[in-house]
Amino acid sequence: MLQHPPAEPGMREEEIDTPALVLDLDAFEHNLDTMAALLAPTGTKLRAHAKTHKSAVVALAQMRRGAVGQCVQKVAEAEALAWGGVPDILVSNEVIAPRKLARLAALSSIAKVAVCVDDAAGIAAVEQAAEAAGIRMTTLVEIDIGGGRCGVEPGPPAVALAERIAASPHLIFGGLQAYHGSAQHRRTPEERHAAIAFAAEGTRRTVEQCRQRGLECAIVGGAGTGTFALEAASGVWTEIQAGSYAFMDADYGRNQDPPPFRHALFVLAQVMSAPRPGIAVVDAGHKAVAVDSGLPLVHGFPGTLYTGASDEHGTLKGEGLPRLGEKVRLIPGHCDPTVDRYDWYVGVRKGRVECLWPIAARGGMA
Amino acid sequence: MLQHPPAEPGMREEEIDTPALVLDLDAFEHNLDTMAALLAPTGTKLRAHAKTHKSAVVALAQMRRGAVGQCVQKVAEAEALAWGGVPDILVSNEVIAPRKLARLAALSSIAKVAVCVDDAAGIAAVEQAAEAAGIRMTTLVEIDIGGGRCGVEPGPPAVALAERIAASPHLIFGGLQAYHGSAQHRRTPEERHAAIAFAAEGTRRTVEQCRQRGLECAIVGGAGTGTFALEAASGVWTEIQAGSYAFMDADYGRNQDPPPFRHALFVLAQVMSAPRPGIAVVDAGHKAVAVDSGLPLVHGFPGTLYTGASDEHGTLKGEGLPRLGEKVRLIPGHCDPTVDRYDWYVGVRKGRVECLWPIAARGGMA
Repeated sequence: MLQHPPAEPGMREEEIDTPALVLDLDAFEHNLDTMAALLAPTGTKLRAHAKTHKSAVVALAQMRRGAVGQCVQKVAEAEALAWGGVPDILVSNEVIAPRKLARLAALSSIAKVAVCVDDAAGIAAVEQAAEAAGIRMTTLVEIDIGGGRCGVEPGPPAVALAERIAASPHLIFGGLQAYHGSAQHRRTPEERHAAIAFAAEGTRRTVEQCRQRGLECAIVGGAGTGTFALEAASGVWTEIQAGSYAFMDADYGRNQDPPPFRHALFVLAQVMSAPRPGIAVVDAGHKAVAVDSGLPLVHGFPGTLYTGASDEHGTLKGEGLPRLGEKVRLIPGHCDPTVDRYDWYVGVRKGRVECLWPIAARGGMA
Repeated sequence: MLQHPPAEPGMREEEIDTPALVLDLDAFEHNLDTMAALLAPTGTKLRAHAKTHKSAVVALAQMRRGAVGQCVQKVAEAEALAWGGVPDILVSNEVIAPRKLARLAALSSIAKVAVCVDDAAGIAAVEQAAEAAGIRMTTLVEIDIGGGRCGVEPGPPAVALAERIAASPHLIFGGLQAYHGSAQHRRTPEERHAAIAFAAEGTRRTVEQCRQRGLECAIVGGAGTGTFALEAASGVWTEIQAGSYAFMDADYGRNQDPPPFRHALFVLAQVMSAPRPGIAVVDAGHKAVAVDSGLPLVHGFPGTLYTGASDEHGTLKGEGLPRLGEKVRLIPGHCDPTVDRYDWYVGVRKGRVECLWPIAARGGMA
């Protein structure tokens, strides 16, 4: 069941029902403008990752500033974006279930769609779905450039899959998916440089070996908010897939030399119990704010720490605590899974609710 | 947006789209029957906690086996239950926002509702809402019996709040909320005994002091799946608020002398990448299965460990791994927040989908 919107346009921020997902529109727009300005001189395009925001409204705001399309991880996310008017969507992930591939192929009448593979069996599955739908599906080969998760090895194993795709009458070889996830959160610039230098070597080698076989990599996609400047400067990647930059979470803030974005996404919470001196309990626990990358920070209360999350409660301790009934902005440790718990963004500017945007792909896991 | 159901009745389990929340109906019914049988000789009633299941369908199944009502943590959960036919609902939590209290009071025309307080300001807020709605709201005093979160101190501070409630023409004093959350997961029986013995002393003392002032505690509620046998045997509590017993998660399974319930709730996931020997990647990361109480277990694959969760991926390593395309049941580390990520239960019996139940209070945080 869709939850009621927690606010109405025109309300003051203090009137928003809690917990709520609040988007500071000035900071959000600053982040979008900053990314566009940083990428412009590099010539590298932005294909922002919708796994973060799950919203066609946010996607189109990114595209109005020059993003060439969107990435998603799930077919349900691709559906929400395509139905919301996003014209160019890459599933930056493997999809092997026939039902899901049929749904993806069905979107191709309203949007450009593409998908990744890392196995010959995966290619066969995409091929069958494309043939059944009477389309040619653009298919990228994912390579493992250090993340150690999905992806075939760079070089000959990747080229073999690319040739298999190019030989199919139902597929179009689209290029390479080359994302180093774990590099994003390495704390020092030196560690991030080393990881992306390694990734760039394998990616460049694979692009060249494809070219030697007559296969052009139209897209070489990868990078996230923690490392995108390195990929953009490398000359290897054509598209940057950053997502978190739009919102900027607490964990990226812990990187040394952090990316130049502002915290734009908050969970607004209310102190609903303050039973003893030195403690305040808010109505936002780990069902309301993701804790997989650390506990949230308390915005504007420098002496206050969010020290523990249970299902529906967050415990604040420290100095200068908010009072019973007071509302506070929490900065999520990790934006992506926090957004995925909500049905609505409450857009706020200068203390007033300006807009409500649906999180149409919330819970879209399939 | 409500997500499509991932299955249809009659399908084989292997046909369910992934990730999906699968309820093993035989195990679920066993758990409900077991709890009813364990509590019957103690005379202690069950008011099962709907924070776990978020579903009127599950609530009514519990009530058909003798549960006297349901607990919730949030007004949105109370709404979903009342609208789904649950007649008796206790918000086992403080609610101080006027908008929320007005919504709760509005439910009293279709269900018996009650709420907790731990502060005089909270009582005043409930009183205003009840007066505005023209009802008398049953109000319990929450006491802190060792959990260290919400709740006033046992004894005189609690009695003072009880007297304040009883003196109000708009409120009815309903008793005590006495839940020791952190005791549920203490690993040894000795630790759990000690915690509940401490909790029982403070609770009994408060009940007696209320009685000395002429205030009867009609409800003395508390306990969870980890300790309920202790509270039920104590003679202090009148109602047990266990929730997880219906599903039984991996973390409760790690208690020494664990509660006698079967794992009934699973996240069905599919291997969507198997790029190297010794690794299989499933399509269920921490957006699909909560990791706040540890990573999930892989059911039926004794040599396989779920070693890491990213947003949309889970990494399996070990011996005898499932193959690319194969579907596996994951046992969540923590059921409550896992359920809260899904719109549908897929009820399965003997390998077939028997029913689909909506998780009507999914995301109901307000």
